[in-house]
Amino acid sequence: MKITAVIMAGGRGERFWPKSRNSRPKQFLSLTSDGKTMIQKTVERISSLVDAGDIYIVTNAAYKGFCREQLPDIPEENILAEPAPRNTAPCIALAAAVIGRKYDDAVMLVLPSDQLIRCRGIFINTLKKAVKAAENSDDLITIGITPSYPETGYGYICCGSEKGDVFEVEAFREKPDLPTAKKYLASGNYLWNSGMFIWRLATINASLKRLMPEIYEGAQRIGAAFGSPDSDEVLEREFTAFPSESVDFGIMEKSENICTIPGSFGWDDVGSWLSVERINDTDSDRNCISGDVITENVRRTTICGGKRLIAAVGVKDVIIVDTDDALLVCAKDSTQDVKQIIAKLRENGRDNLI
Amino acid sequence: MKITAVIMAGGRGERFWPKSRNSRPKQFLSLTSDGKTMIQKTVERISSLVDAGDIYIVTNAAYKGFCREQLPDIPEENILAEPAPRNTAPCIALAAAVIGRKYDDAVMLVLPSDQLIRCRGIFINTLKKAVKAAENSDDLITIGITPSYPETGYGYICCGSEKGDVFEVEAFREKPDLPTAKKYLASGNYLWNSGMFIWRLATINASLKRLMPEIYEGAQRIGAAFGSPDSDEVLEREFTAFPSESVDFGIMEKSENICTIPGSFGWDDVGSWLSVERINDTDSDRNCISGDVITENVRRTTICGGKRLIAAVGVKDVIIVDTDDALLVCAKDSTQDVKQIIAKLRENGRDNLI
Repeated sequence: MKITAVIMAGGRGERFWPKSRNSRPKQFLSLTSDGKTMIQKTVERISSLVDAGDIYIVTNAAYKGFCREQLPDIPEENILAEPAPRNTAPCIALAAAVIGRKYDDAVMLVLPSDQLIRCRGIFINTLKKAVKAAENSDDLITIGITPSYPETGYGYICCGSEKGDVFEVEAFREKPDLPTAKKYLASGNYLWNSGMFIWRLATINASLKRLMPEIYEGAQRIGAAFGSPDSDEVLEREFTAFPSESVDFGIMEKSENICTIPGSFGWDDVGSWLSVERINDTDSDRNCISGDVITENVRRTTICGGKRLIAAVGVKDVIIVDTDDALLVCAKDSTQDVKQIIAKLRENGRDNLI
Repeated sequence: MKITAVIMAGGRGERFWPKSRNSRPKQFLSLTSDGKTMIQKTVERISSLVDAGDIYIVTNAAYKGFCREQLPDIPEENILAEPAPRNTAPCIALAAAVIGRKYDDAVMLVLPSDQLIRCRGIFINTLKKAVKAAENSDDLITIGITPSYPETGYGYICCGSEKGDVFEVEAFREKPDLPTAKKYLASGNYLWNSGMFIWRLATINASLKRLMPEIYEGAQRIGAAFGSPDSDEVLEREFTAFPSESVDFGIMEKSENICTIPGSFGWDDVGSWLSVERINDTDSDRNCISGDVITENVRRTTICGGKRLIAAVGVKDVIIVDTDDALLVCAKDSTQDVKQIIAKLRENGRDNLI
């Protein structure tokens, strides 16, 4: 069966401020030394499995230019612009409706555009197994990441009984507190919820029709009008009327036919500036440095230089990010507070800096 | 007797890098919220005691423009440009020779251009007493600062017997280690060496003639040619031939007629970025912040903003200094290592940043 991919690239991502902005979120930035952007790496990663013509990008209208510039091999009509952000369920329904114009049925990989995977070979191997399982069933399959430590920032998947290469999902669990995360890890039964999905077009459409009929019908109307003179108008009208809902909450948590395939391919959700040292090389003092930087007695520090010299002296466990109009100096244990800075900027009407 | 002042403003000062550069050292920068530069504050501070026409600035030729721009009330001919840096003894000899053209004798105040004094009234009061003591004696008087803690970065003056408002100097002591500094402080007999001097023109000239005859004779030749067509040529030839020597080592430590007047007027040598929080207001979290800065959970941190927004999050005891072409992020306990950065820049031929 044909394999298609839907890459979700509508996120605004404030966690990489000041490098990421509303005008250029994380997926369109390079955070690795190879100079490739997150979305470029996402597309490149699946190129051996999915034809460029079968890769769909769902993004915000404002980011269409980045997609075309960074992904010249993806056909222009495969770049779908959401008129408004409505979370993942409408995004997936839209893509399913558009893909449905081309294929009666197909396997659909649904992938975030801003995650990083270290071992591409293992990842492809995992995907292939999931594709096979999806082809031969009516299951909605999510990739579960074998956890390596008791992370409290991710949702968890509780595995049930084995079913070939996949496991039935017993339950989804919200972000746990640390004791609970430790219990999950110790049980050996829990995986991190990665937000990557594999299913057949017919399977997800049936689920959408049953559990989110409004979204399903609207998406079908968008699909029917797609490419016609009314296309933009129908998209605008139908999509903006959708409720904002995640596929996790709207479908996965309410369905019985949910499976997970465990993956151990060096997954990183690149969720904050703390990730940068994990996904790049560090020096002997565990610093992760790019740009025109001179250091003296600096340890465990991430520096993303801009156009100017940065001299760092004696600092430890700090993140320094320089851009033309804003500089961030943040203690590593405070990265979650960067959102307070953005809130203050918003409060003061300084939207040009957000 | 007429009171004159010599303000020594030739220092290059790398300790305020990246704000201070060879092209604009500390004395020509504002480090306080009033926006006045260090040399402007130095001149303003003595304005009630010395006429503008009797204030002489000895500086580097490259800095004459700053002096004229920042000190419009000082006559142009009072701004003396050293052809080469030769430490304080040649600087003072030059000024004494030039002042000698105008006055047979006068009181000379010799003041660094880059120190800060909190209590101007007490300072003027101290100067007045020193002037009176200098007028009526052949003493070379240095202002000793009543120490408030066992600083190891200053030289100390050991006081001898009282002589009116001044004390005879028993000895000068190099920068002590901490136990010695503590002993000095406990004894109640030691003052910090401030580098401010008060003496009569005739007294310093006699001392120069006796202890540094080469410098004295050369300076007199410069003074004789001053204002003539040969002036620049004589200055260049004589001054560059001077050895580089401090007045402390060349005169003070070798003389008997040395006195000190204790001063407690809130003196600060503004020796590093650490001083900035001492000489400016701090907020309730003990931060000292200027420029376009947003903070979140930041403590005891000094931020000198430039043209861009600086967002500081969760950092403690850090100094952040932003300029157009260089940024410094320095732990407070590492300010002495900023010179390593400058050394590396020099090594790499990046003199435009020094």
